[in-house]
Amino acid sequence: MLDKNSNLLVVSAHAADFVWRGGGAIAKYAKHANVSLVILSYGARGESNDLWNIEGQTLENVKNVRRNEIEKAAAHLGVKDFEIWDFEDYHMELTKERTERLVKKIREVRPTDILTHGPRDAFNPDHEAVSKFVFDASVLSTSNGVRFDGYPTAKQARLFGFEPHQSEISDFVPEVILDITETYEQKAAAMNCFEAQPHLIDYYASKAKLRGNHARRCSGNKEYRYAEAFTRFFPYVGGEFK
Amino acid sequence: MLDKNSNLLVVSAHAADFVWRGGGAIAKYAKHANVSLVILSYGARGESNDLWNIEGQTLENVKNVRRNEIEKAAAHLGVKDFEIWDFEDYHMELTKERTERLVKKIREVRPTDILTHGPRDAFNPDHEAVSKFVFDASVLSTSNGVRFDGYPTAKQARLFGFEPHQSEISDFVPEVILDITETYEQKAAAMNCFEAQPHLIDYYASKAKLRGNHARRCSGNKEYRYAEAFTRFFPYVGGEFK
Amino acid sequence: MLDKNSNLLVVSAHAADFVWRGGGAIAKYAKHANVSLVILSYGARGESNDLWNIEGQTLENVKNVRRNEIEKAAAHLGVKDFEIWDFEDYHMELTKERTERLVKKIREVRPTDILTHGPRDAFNPDHEAVSKFVFDASVLSTSNGVRFDGYPTAKQARLFGFEPHQSEISDFVPEVILDITETYEQKAAAMNCFEAQPHLIDYYASKAKLRGNHARRCSGNKEYRYAEAFTRFFPYVGGEFK
Amino acid sequence: MLDKNSNLLVVSAHAADFVWRGGGAIAKYAKHANVSLVILSYGARGESNDLWNIEGQTLENVKNVRRNEIEKAAAHLGVKDFEIWDFEDYHMELTKERTERLVKKIREVRPTDILTHGPRDAFNPDHEAVSKFVFDASVLSTSNGVRFDGYPTAKQARLFGFEPHQSEISDFVPEVILDITETYEQKAAAMNCFEAQPHLIDYYASKAKLRGNHARRCSGNKEYRYAEAFTRFFPYVGGEFK
Amino acid sequence: MLDKNSNLLVVSAHAADFVWRGGGAIAKYAKHANVSLVILSYGARGESNDLWNIEGQTLENVKNVRRNEIEKAAAHLGVKDFEIWDFEDYHMELTKERTERLVKKIREVRPTDILTHGPRDAFNPDHEAVSKFVFDASVLSTSNGVRFDGYPTAKQARLFGFEPHQSEISDFVPEVILDITETYEQKAAAMNCFEAQPHLIDYYASKAKLRGNHARRCSGNKEYRYAEAFTRFFPYVGGEFK
Amino acid sequence: MLDKNSNLLVVSAHAADFVWRGGGAIAKYAKHANVSLVILSYGARGESNDLWNIEGQTLENVKNVRRNEIEKAAAHLGVKDFEIWDFEDYHMELTKERTERLVKKIREVRPTDILTHGPRDAFNPDHEAVSKFVFDASVLSTSNGVRFDGYPTAKQARLFGFEPHQSEISDFVPEVILDITETYEQKAAAMNCFEAQPHLIDYYASKAKLRGNHARRCSGNKEYRYAEAFTRFFPYVGGEFK
Repeated sequence: MLDKNSNLLVVSAHAADFVWRGGGAIAKYAKHANVSLVILSYGARGESNDLWNIEGQTLENVKNVRRNEIEKAAAHLGVKDFEIWDFEDYHMELTKERTERLVKKIREVRPTDILTHGPRDAFNPDHEAVSKFVFDASVLSTSNGVRFDGYPTAKQARLFGFEPHQSEISDFVPEVILDITETYEQKAAAMNCFEAQPHLIDYYASKAKLRGNHARRCSGNKEYRYAEAFTRFFPYVGGEFK
Repeated sequence: MLDKNSNLLVVSAHAADFVWRGGGAIAKYAKHANVSLVILSYGARGESNDLWNIEGQTLENVKNVRRNEIEKAAAHLGVKDFEIWDFEDYHMELTKERTERLVKKIREVRPTDILTHGPRDAFNPDHEAVSKFVFDASVLSTSNGVRFDGYPTAKQARLFGFEPHQSEISDFVPEVILDITETYEQKAAAMNCFEAQPHLIDYYASKAKLRGNHARRCSGNKEYRYAEAFTRFFPYVGGEFK
Repeated sequence: MLDKNSNLLVVSAHAADFVWRGGGAIAKYAKHANVSLVILSYGARGESNDLWNIEGQTLENVKNVRRNEIEKAAAHLGVKDFEIWDFEDYHMELTKERTERLVKKIREVRPTDILTHGPRDAFNPDHEAVSKFVFDASVLSTSNGVRFDGYPTAKQARLFGFEPHQSEISDFVPEVILDITETYEQKAAAMNCFEAQPHLIDYYASKAKLRGNHARRCSGNKEYRYAEAFTRFFPYVGGEFK
Repeated sequence: MLDKNSNLLVVSAHAADFVWRGGGAIAKYAKHANVSLVILSYGARGESNDLWNIEGQTLENVKNVRRNEIEKAAAHLGVKDFEIWDFEDYHMELTKERTERLVKKIREVRPTDILTHGPRDAFNPDHEAVSKFVFDASVLSTSNGVRFDGYPTAKQARLFGFEPHQSEISDFVPEVILDITETYEQKAAAMNCFEAQPHLIDYYASKAKLRGNHARRCSGNKEYRYAEAFTRFFPYVGGEFK
Repeated sequence: MLDKNSNLLVVSAHAADFVWRGGGAIAKYAKHANVSLVILSYGARGESNDLWNIEGQTLENVKNVRRNEIEKAAAHLGVKDFEIWDFEDYHMELTKERTERLVKKIREVRPTDILTHGPRDAFNPDHEAVSKFVFDASVLSTSNGVRFDGYPTAKQARLFGFEPHQSEISDFVPEVILDITETYEQKAAAMNCFEAQPHLIDYYASKAKLRGNHARRCSGNKEYRYAEAFTRFFPYVGGEFK
Repeated sequence: MLDKNSNLLVVSAHAADFVWRGGGAIAKYAKHANVSLVILSYGARGESNDLWNIEGQTLENVKNVRRNEIEKAAAHLGVKDFEIWDFEDYHMELTKERTERLVKKIREVRPTDILTHGPRDAFNPDHEAVSKFVFDASVLSTSNGVRFDGYPTAKQARLFGFEPHQSEISDFVPEVILDITETYEQKAAAMNCFEAQPHLIDYYASKAKLRGNHARRCSGNKEYRYAEAFTRFFPYVGGEFK
């Protein structure tokens, strides 16, 4: 069903968020539809703890390592269109200029679906700030009175939120569970690129199995083996019960 | 997209609930898929106020009036398969035997989707009781150890909840908004059958327009004119963002 | 009961918010009590979509059109004391200076009741920002240590929040439902002034009827025909159950 | 403002609930308006712990002690119309017959306001059961199809909920704070009648002062010294902001 | 720290709930403190799906298989004091007599801590019913007026709730995360006894790792490898921050 | 149990917050463990109303009065290590530089527990801002990539939130109730130092008794007479039920 009429725009706060939280879904859209990926920061300050244990480590080198990891991970997921905006992380300042940059990006990509962080993350203020940043930009992108030459107004996209690391204390409720059985191997390969966060690889492999169990239980479909969970910013609208 | 592989089972607490709260969706499923409708009561005690203002009114006569209305409304919606179980309403007692009756009905119909009342209704204890009744029966219907000869176990259906009359004070949040532009005229005709509740006809006509506005705003699709809103009991599970 | 001892201060984010969301209540206070109205922006960027479809449209002209609409609408509601602060909208920046300006306004008006946007609006970041802006200013206005010559400290006002466009997904719960039957025609006339947002006129006319139905149902008073719903920031305090 | 047009019906699960949780408000209504009080049980099993420490204690004697306390407390509050229905408590079974008895009582009293337990009490299942019992009966009382000879249908009353003992873990939020400065001495006298629960007298005296502080802070009215807090089952409906 | 002054009473709705949801904690208490275990049903109807796929299966045989599994699992956890009450499951009826039986059990065991199902389980009505059943019995057990010869009143125990299968849609929030690294092997061995529910063994092994990750992240203690999560019914009370 | 291995860092928005909301707990930690106290502002603008009623009052003098009060109160609580950062209050601006200052403070103190304002306070925007400020700084303090010479990364501390003035309308739920019977007299003495806020002394004395009642009821421990309530930012993690 998924086809080239679908454009998925992914906005990831740090280097690896898009892989842990949505790698399976992204690989699926890269295969059957279109994906544009914006990575706002290298996560050099907040999500590269092990790299900083190396003596003489520098910010430039951390960024190099992480860029290399991103490139390999994106290749595993089949994503060719990606940009790293290199904002400082922890804490990320999201100015009016940065919002306008994202408005223009949305108007270029004209996404049917936007995937980014959800509004709450109990351990990660950057994720919360990015969630509001993307939402605000999406609102501006559809408004006729917010005018940039060469960037005509976009149609309202659907917005979906990543699962945060500790779901329940972040008020996360799975509203959308996507089957990623078809692309799970790609996600696993992409996760393995992030040597700076080894403890997370096993974690998100377990998560994918648990969400697969939930997918089977909620649907009665026994073929779902791996899944990812997301929230939605707006209600589902359509022609039939889904 | 909707086709004969979809079986919708509707469980309505009182005579007219299925029309006010889901008439448009039901007409759509009746047209393109399959619909089975169970009406648990005539609403003779709790939802026939105007009929009881007629001098010399009797319970039997109220039920006759309401049966007649139900038959005409179902015809407008294109629903041929319906049953009235004639439980007493206000307050409805939902015994173990009644639960088993519904388990058998679910196993017969083998619905892909079940539509009934959501868990909260700030003014209507019957609606709350029916919500739990249907949910409980759906759980039993899938369990291999709950055995009735001739009624093999059903597969897990999706469950959806009607919008209650006063949505916000009933904790209702629209999670599914269905476009009913195609069948709105049928819903309007069905609503007009319920002369015992005239004040509701205008109310739900207005609601359909408001939900149509929400459908347009959330989706960017300008062709949606009328809509109905529902909650879901479980997350959406599928292969792509919807 | 309403009399000249009541001073209502209304703070509206954009040109027409005060009409859609509180026009009936405002007309009532204008008739029996006192109303001061502050409109923070023309809504030129975010709420004037149709105007920008006119070729050669300019910001100055959009503002002129909207100012004209505001003046006519205010006249229909009987509001003589209004100010347009001409902030840029989408997104509104609410600085310390702007907060102090509102503190002074509150201390001048000395409102018994303040009406503005509630804390959540699922589609409108400006409304959320204004809600906090007004609340923060109201806190400062009562504090003896926040000193401006000529502006003595105000007494704590009651704060009420407008209904957002999509109530349920904005966590809106009607806590106060005001009967506007007496002034509904004025509200209708005021709504008709906003030609730039024609799709909203029918929407809020339907809303007024629905809220009228809720008013009748919650109170048993059959004379309520039209109503508006609001949230309250603090509990009701008084001498009897209301 | 409060006058003889107001009829307050109070339904108390156990002997002393109406005093701890609403004694000040009840005394006020007894003074200026009308009060009918129904006490469902003596609280002999669940709320008479100290009495059972007396050797040779009997159920009959516990009830006698508590009846005596109730009579004295009611006298202090100025309530003449009260009934003790003598249900067993801990846990209270609230059958169809008992619901019908309350329906008839409501139709007799024709209350403008009903005061009873709110829906959640983290330590007291009886209070939760009574809350639903009263709500259900109030729904039936207004329904034309629920017919008892000599008991014509009542108009919808407003419903208010008592503050439970541990408010926050019982999801209690003060929505209505009533000034009881005028009748606080009566409440204090009534509380002192309940020798079986001495630890609660000091507790609810402190509560009244705290709620008085909240009343002052929320309203700016410095004359409020003692107050009681309640929830409301439905929104406030009226002609002006309150 | 854990010692023989602690008495843990576990109430499990079905045969294996206590293992999946609390096996590690139970083994720890069995080792260092005291454990009493009540299993309310064999789960023959609702949680033995695979057993019913065997041709000619009988209820008696299903119970025998499950009893055997329970015995082996309890042995792995080191629990010697357990009872199976053999209630019918799906749906469990929890009568006044059954409540009194549990009141007596609580008064016998005199637990410092009670562990049972939490109040919400989105797929399992039995778990919800048992949660209220245990809570209600615990309230009665402390009340001096609820008298059974030979069963003196118990002191208020702390109550904790199991994690349900799909945590987020069951409103579960981890309030207590217990390190079970020390007893994880015992839990694994106990889980392996339940051949009737093979799909759950892998599921709860993954869960234990995820909760171990959360335990490390929330505490900074790197030695936690496996953990279990629970809710609490009442606030933590003690002499220091924990 | 509490010993010198525990380091409590307290961050108080205004002069007296730490006393009203946590004085008993702080005195306990000062006696048995270690306490560091940071007071962000004198509360000169927002929490010194009575002082400003004195004719000719100056900001400098208000600060002097409040400094004097803080010093005396800290002495009563046994706190020797405290700092006043003298930020302007009402409203407090919490810049990147200020966050870094707190990061360094956390890395110096290396607290096991941090006590500050919880995320919601219905009447006090400063308290809400400080809650996020402290949380954000605590996140940065543990991150290896946020580097300041001489300030090695801290281990994750537990975070606890003060009770706000009006708990329920601030979404406060007591998750931790600490017995302060042992240090209540010290708290009372410290409260009496704040002559600028006399109405609060009686208020928080009453609160301590009410929370003592809750402590007794939740634990069954009759020796608790006074208590303070707090929220926790993360789940309890440990080796046994607490």
